[in-house]
Amino acid sequence: MTESSGSPHPLPPVALPGHAIVGILGGGQLGRMLALAGYPLGLRFRFLEPTADSPGGQMAEQIVAPYDDPDALRRFSDGLAVATYEFENVSVAAASQISARVPLYPPPAALAASQERIVEKTFFHMLEIPVPAFSAVESAEELNAAVERLGLPSVLKTRRFGYDGKGQRVLRNQKDVEAAWTEMGGEPLILERFVPFYRELSLIAARSRNGETVFYPLVENHHREGILRLSLAPAPRLTPALQGQAEEFARRILEELEYVGVLAIEFFQQGDRRRANEMAPRVHNSGHWTIEGAETSQFENHLRAILGMPLGSPKAFGFSAMVNLIGELPPLHRILQIPGAHLHLYGKQPRAARKIGHVTIRAISPEERHERLAQLQAIIGKTVE
Amino acid sequence: MTESSGSPHPLPPVALPGHAIVGILGGGQLGRMLALAGYPLGLRFRFLEPTADSPGGQMAEQIVAPYDDPDALRRFSDGLAVATYEFENVSVAAASQISARVPLYPPPAALAASQERIVEKTFFHMLEIPVPAFSAVESAEELNAAVERLGLPSVLKTRRFGYDGKGQRVLRNQKDVEAAWTEMGGEPLILERFVPFYRELSLIAARSRNGETVFYPLVENHHREGILRLSLAPAPRLTPALQGQAEEFARRILEELEYVGVLAIEFFQQGDRRRANEMAPRVHNSGHWTIEGAETSQFENHLRAILGMPLGSPKAFGFSAMVNLIGELPPLHRILQIPGAHLHLYGKQPRAARKIGHVTIRAISPEERHERLAQLQAIIGKTVE
Repeated sequence: MTESSGSPHPLPPVALPGHAIVGILGGGQLGRMLALAGYPLGLRFRFLEPTADSPGGQMAEQIVAPYDDPDALRRFSDGLAVATYEFENVSVAAASQISARVPLYPPPAALAASQERIVEKTFFHMLEIPVPAFSAVESAEELNAAVERLGLPSVLKTRRFGYDGKGQRVLRNQKDVEAAWTEMGGEPLILERFVPFYRELSLIAARSRNGETVFYPLVENHHREGILRLSLAPAPRLTPALQGQAEEFARRILEELEYVGVLAIEFFQQGDRRRANEMAPRVHNSGHWTIEGAETSQFENHLRAILGMPLGSPKAFGFSAMVNLIGELPPLHRILQIPGAHLHLYGKQPRAARKIGHVTIRAISPEERHERLAQLQAIIGKTVE
Repeated sequence: MTESSGSPHPLPPVALPGHAIVGILGGGQLGRMLALAGYPLGLRFRFLEPTADSPGGQMAEQIVAPYDDPDALRRFSDGLAVATYEFENVSVAAASQISARVPLYPPPAALAASQERIVEKTFFHMLEIPVPAFSAVESAEELNAAVERLGLPSVLKTRRFGYDGKGQRVLRNQKDVEAAWTEMGGEPLILERFVPFYRELSLIAARSRNGETVFYPLVENHHREGILRLSLAPAPRLTPALQGQAEEFARRILEELEYVGVLAIEFFQQGDRRRANEMAPRVHNSGHWTIEGAETSQFENHLRAILGMPLGSPKAFGFSAMVNLIGELPPLHRILQIPGAHLHLYGKQPRAARKIGHVTIRAISPEERHERLAQLQAIIGKTVE
């Protein structure tokens, strides 16, 4: 594979991480887990994050300032080997200011393609990756026309800044349509045809500065109230055909964007059909299982990729299940007693609907995973339901 | 198992790590790996370490001061949930000052038993754990008498502050005896009978505040120039009898000391005979393989133990080899290309004979471990031999 880099900093691969500093925009749990994976590689970290004492800032340098503060961006960039981000709503202005000074990965084109749902779906469509039927909606008339075209149920979503189920509603009847418009009308929206009887799968891919690419096995995700609750890795009933098709779709995206870093892509599987739902140009909640469940974690491979180091194997070890801890802390003693359970707390204050940690169960068979997961859910259920 | 704690702080097990701060005396790589294992448990860390920008201080709060500075010890202790140490030469005065304010584990009795080789060997002997024959040596006359009694070859060692082969010499003839006395005479020494044709095995054990105890599988260690180079885990030709006997010896030590935390014990195996060499009341270089190679790492289990949390399984996954990086950095790109290789750098400047990192190879069979280890040694050999 050849690389025709469009980066303003086509640096050679970093030969020696030594004491290289990696800058991360955003100091949440994804940044924290990047730093935890990167210290053993000899790296140091600097976060730019407006909230003091963030999950990342608890264990590395943190500049406490808004993401669009030019002076903070200057101090943040100073002396970095490379910069990256842990959320996809980085402004184009901030990205430009950073990338004028140091290499910034994933590339800005990936931000542009993933920040706005119409752009993202059109991008998938252009690469011949199937997506659910959709319509842009900016007025009540357009909403009615879109409902007419796509039918009900459909899903109305804001085009920007949606996460964890925020900014979307399922429309099942005309009353829902009117209520949703009252609530969400006024900002750019997208209506998507609802895909029934699907399961959600996600693919985590990593591509390095030299074009080397690896794919983790597909994962099956379960949400409740729009928030990821459970990932099973590898996905049950995973076939080489299913994995191969997801990788083929991912490869088109990675190459089109000259992508560098970890990319997550969510798919709907409905029988033999797969449709792309969305992508995230960053490490992803559905890849947390890789810390214990894969030869190399998504966090380590993201860092290796953006530093131009060889990528590590994405091979799964046994069978993993990742369960998010949401809202309140469950009794940790009981969780630590489950064989093969690995606790990850993020250093965040508990708050309703907030992801404050996760637990990964690693097992030697799907049956053992099922049994240990049942033990875990018996504990978690009491605290988060 | 019942616990009759002699601790001045017989606290109940810590129910919620939340934002508990763990204080660590010493900011070297062992402290760094403790913190890396502890952040996912929701813990925070504070180091007391005289050298600025230490491996631990790069990723947590560090008080830069000597270990015997009373004011620093006060600031260090302030608000800690628990204190521990990453080297065994903590002074009794410092340990007392800390344990008057916060729980300090492992218990001071373990420090006393392991800081001085005559005390340590006598302690083993008292517990009916076999040791090589030894004599205390404080004068040239005593050295000659000890050589007469134990024969040659024997090993002359300083009684305190020995590590990585420092402070010891093998005596093979009368000329060695005189040279060693010229070099080492004047401080308290011990002469030990040399054990020929042995292999060194080590056992890592963890015991929690509530008495729960786990043992990792025995590891085979290889040294050169007195410095650990390679550990194979589990040890080749490990039998249940061998493991069982080592665990029985360890159990006597743990119970006698009412031990809390991780304890490492080194054994000489010579045919069917096992003799204890020394112990370290802390996480240990020969346990680094547990980060990837065991269900729960020695670092996580040390923290769980001193906080009174349930211990994690010490079960090995597959077959691991741990190789120390000593003196200079090898070409990291080539190391990262080895399948199953996991790099750990400590954030230290390279310097002759200094441990600056390690690599753990994890494999699914002894043959695969052998093959990957050969790849690694082909790279390391060029830089450290």
